[in-house]
Parts: sequence; C-alpha cells; structure tokens
Amino acid sequence: MTKIRIGIYGYGNIGKGVELAVLNSNNLELVGIFSRRENIKTLNSITIQASRIKEYKEKIDVLILCGGSKKDLPLLSPELLKDFNTIDSFDTHALIPEYFEKMNKVGKESKTLGLVSVGWDPGILSMARVLFESILPRGKNYTFWGKGISQGHSDAIRKITGVLDARQYTIPKLDVLRSIKEGSAKELTSQEMHLRECYVVLENDTKEERKRVEEEIKTMPNYFLGYDVIVHFISQEELNLNHNRLPHAGRVIRHAKTTDENNHLLEFNLTLDSNPEFTGSIMVAYAQALHRMHQEGVTGAITVFDIPLSKLSNLSNEELRKKML
Amino acid sequence: MTKIRIGIYGYGNIGKGVELAVLNSNNLELVGIFSRRENIKTLNSITIQASRIKEYKEKIDVLILCGGSKKDLPLLSPELLKDFNTIDSFDTHALIPEYFEKMNKVGKESKTLGLVSVGWDPGILSMARVLFESILPRGKNYTFWGKGISQGHSDAIRKITGVLDARQYTIPKLDVLRSIKEGSAKELTSQEMHLRECYVVLENDTKEERKRVEEEIKTMPNYFLGYDVIVHFISQEELNLNHNRLPHAGRVIRHAKTTDENNHLLEFNLTLDSNPEFTGSIMVAYAQALHRMHQEGVTGAITVFDIPLSKLSNLSNEELRKKML
Repeated sequence: MTKIRIGIYGYGNIGKGVELAVLNSNNLELVGIFSRRENIKTLNSITIQASRIKEYKEKIDVLILCGGSKKDLPLLSPELLKDFNTIDSFDTHALIPEYFEKMNKVGKESKTLGLVSVGWDPGILSMARVLFESILPRGKNYTFWGKGISQGHSDAIRKITGVLDARQYTIPKLDVLRSIKEGSAKELTSQEMHLRECYVVLENDTKEERKRVEEEIKTMPNYFLGYDVIVHFISQEELNLNHNRLPHAGRVIRHAKTTDENNHLLEFNLTLDSNPEFTGSIMVAYAQALHRMHQEGVTGAITVFDIPLSKLSNLSNEELRKKML
Repeated sequence: MTKIRIGIYGYGNIGKGVELAVLNSNNLELVGIFSRRENIKTLNSITIQASRIKEYKEKIDVLILCGGSKKDLPLLSPELLKDFNTIDSFDTHALIPEYFEKMNKVGKESKTLGLVSVGWDPGILSMARVLFESILPRGKNYTFWGKGISQGHSDAIRKITGVLDARQYTIPKLDVLRSIKEGSAKELTSQEMHLRECYVVLENDTKEERKRVEEEIKTMPNYFLGYDVIVHFISQEELNLNHNRLPHAGRVIRHAKTTDENNHLLEFNLTLDSNPEFTGSIMVAYAQALHRMHQEGVTGAITVFDIPLSKLSNLSNEELRKKML
C-alpha cells in the first residue's frame, strides 16, 4: 500500500499535534512542515520555508492547514486550495458559511477538495448534535465546554495593562448539567451553563492593581461580561508549574422524548489531556477520508457532515461490518 | 414538499416504536402497517394483511422491517428487497456479513436499496466505535450494555420448566467502568464487564424449586454461565407492577493516548426509558437517509457506516453548516 503523503502548513500548538498524529499513524508519510519561521524545532520532521510550498504541488496528497482562524486561514486557505487538497480547523462559527462558499468555489475551479472546520467543535461535537437531533426531534441539544484552557480568553486577559501572564479555564456548571440530565432545564445561554476561572500574574502585585485588573476582566464585553468569573492572582512560577498544560473537555447532551412519559438522554463526552494533540488527531484521521473522497472524484468544499464513517476508517468495508458493526 | 411514504412490516415492540416515530415526524406519511396477524391494535394507523404487500410496490418509498433477527429477517428481508427499499435492525452480529452480501446482491439486481442492521447496537454505538478508533488509534474501545432489560435473556429464563414469567436486567459493573476511565483496565470480556439480575415468577414457589431454577439459570451456557448472576423470586403482581417497562442503556468508551503521558477519554452514552421506541426512532431517521440515497442512484445494501450525517438530517447542507457546525 502506498502511503498518503501529508504536508503540514503552520507549526503552532495544532501543527505540533498534527505532526504527532502523523508520526503515530502507519499509513501516512510526512513530507514536511512548512513554516514562515526559521529554525523551528519539530519532533522528528523536515521543515521547509513556507514560500516554497508551490514546489510541492505534485508531492503532497493532503495539506493540513494549522494557522489561526482570525488572520491566517481566511486568506491562506483559498490560496493553497488552488494547488492542494486542504483540511483546516476554521472555527469562527459565524463566518463558516461564507468561508465554505469561497473554498467551494476555488475547489471546484481547481479540481481540488477542501475539508473545512474539522476539530472537536466545530467537528465531532457538531456530528453528535446532528445525529442526536435527527434521531429524536422532540428534544434539545446542550453543548458544554471544559473544564479546559481557553486560549482566546487567556489572550484577552494578557492584553490588559499590567498583566504579565494569564490562563483562563472554562468550567461547566455542574448543577446546570444535572438539571439537563433530569430533564428540568429550559433554554440556556452559554453564560448560564459555564463559569470562567482565571489565573493572573501581575507586573506589580498590589491590592489596588488586583482590584483594577479583576474589575477590567469581569466587565470585558463578549469575553467575561455576564459570566460568573473567579479571578486568582498568582506568581509566574506557580503559573508555570501548575497551569502549563492544555487540557480540555467537551460534551453534547440531548434530552428528548418519544412520548410525554418516555425520556431519553444521549451524551457525547470528551475529556482530553491535550487539546491540540486531540485536534491534530482528528485532522489527520479526516485527512485520510479527504484523500479517499478526492480520489473518487469529489471536488469543492465539504464538512464532516458530508463524510461517511467508512471513509474515515482504515478498515475495509468488509472488516468494518465484521468487526465494528 | 412531498412526504416520504413509509410502510411498517411487522408489529411487535419495535414496530410500535417505529409507528410512534413516524407519527412524531413532520415529513413522513405512514401508508400502513403490514402484519400477518388479524385485529392488531395500532396507535393510529391502518393495518393491512401482510400477504397484500406486493400491491403496495409503487405506493411505498421505504419499508421498515420489524421482524425478529432469528427467524423472520433472514428469509423476509431479501424477498421484500426485490420490490422495496428496506431498512432492518438485523442484530445477530456473527451473521451480519453473510446477511449483508445476500441483501447487496438482491438490491443490485432489483435496483433497490437495503439498509441493514440499524438500531443502537448494531447501529449508532457501532458508529461511535469507528469514529473513536479512527481518530485515536492508540487505545481501546469498551462497549457496555445496561442497565436494561434483555429480551433474549428474559425469554431464556421463561423457557425453564416451572417458570411462569421472568425479566432479566443486564447491568454494567461500575468498578470496571471506573477502571476504564482511569486507564487501568486491560482486555475485558463481557462477563467481566456486566452482571445479570433476574426477577423470576415460579409456578410453584417452594424452597426446592427456587434452588433448582436458580441453579438452572446460573449454569445456562451462552446466556448466564461465567457471569455474576443475581436471582430474585417475586410474585406475578410484583413483576407486572415494577418490571413492566423496557428501559435500556448503552455506552461506548475509548481510553487512548497521543503520547505516553497524554490520555484521552471518549464516551458515547445512551440512557433510554424505552428501548423499542428509541430503536424505532433511529430506524425512522435512517429511513429518510435511505430514501435520499436511493433517489441519488445508490442500490444494493449499505450500513450506517456508508451514510453521511448530511443525508440523515432534515436540514439542508446550508442550514447544517450555519446552525449545527
């Protein structure tokens, strides 16, 4: 069997997770990691200057894009899709439809295939939402994130004047979770379902500074305003020691009825020691599905909703029916 | 929008669950329930003598087969697939490959499509097993059933001489479940993962009879031998009062690693007040996917692994990307 040839474009946390997942796999070959930075330290892979990417057009089956959703992907992905089959974890929910249309157009024109927004949310939690709702229409989905580090919220705190470093944990409220499982929950906002716990290192750790920074965090619109927020001030040493990993968790719960009396609870839970390593593993699994579908002639853009599990698995259809059904 | 026309063939517990799910749906029309029995009492549907099924060839888009896996389906399904698109919940795991091949041959010849082995196991728990294994290859899947009534095991007890009635609950062992979540579990057999609790009504409730029947249950090969078994003797009244429903539950857990240090726990859990109503809901959701795929020209036999979620959902691809991703 010839191995599927993978390229990684961008080498932050997700890029490292993707590299690890490719190295963990038997049927993939990592052609190289493309980065704009010099002298990056990989686990065990060749690095190539990103500007040389076009030279690899015929040498890579799937290019896994590991840039950020805000600045990198909206411009990069359509450009790279002209020459490569691509997979990305674009996660700005509100902009996904527009991003998808753009990718679909480029992919159709270039006869390439782009799989967009693959990770755990958007991604496999989205799949649970669709599966649950399709089976039991009389009910409601709830999605919880955490306990885990939110990079976006940690960054937002770090931008406050006087803050040296920070980590923010998103935490599901257990009493709300319980009320959903009991079927007594109604419509809930993200604010009602989660609390936010922050660990902050100050440049100048005084009583006044603590008061000011805590106030700035709690009133920050979009990020913290409206949430229950807990702020701890700690030293850089303590932060480095106790908050240096990237665990996360997520769950989709559906409570639904078939009759007024009969209730059903469907749950999909993830508990992850490393968010980027898990996201990288998902992208690598779907890169293989993407390659198989492109070989069958599919072009344009697709999402996880368009891919049957038989394409995702390395087992043949016969093996799947025999061993997994 | 024209409604998809559904027929139900067979009217036991699953057939009733399917009828309920069709009635709960907006875009399905129930043409009729086909049964060999006379005077069956449906929720709100026309019943038709099963022998007249061929008259309905052009009037039904998908025929949902609700017979048993042991005697009914192996003969019935290939015969009905000659004239109808069919969906069934064939669940004799060891015979699925052979059953699939037979159905695939008939479907290809007749230009119909048969979706086989759809329920929660085999079915959506199988999907969780494939998804989990594909994403994180370095790990192991565990499937638990229960707490819930096993029809097969209840039947087996009822066949013992002197037993008037019986119910058997399959129950996951919580300490084993815990050891899996902690990552300390190894290879496990179904016997090590579950215990079996039986409620038995005797014709002649004496000490000697209790001893004999308990012994017969505990030594019954394939069903109880090798399991931890608890037997309670109760009256018919108590059984009717406290054990007259069909709840069930199931879960797939995968414990896996990306590095030697980083562990991940993936879980898919179902807790069901009514096993047949939930199974019926799954079959009805997949009946719609089956119809869509047949309209696109797919024939032969398929399983849940071959169906992308976009086909399962009533939402358009645009809506799915906007609302569910």
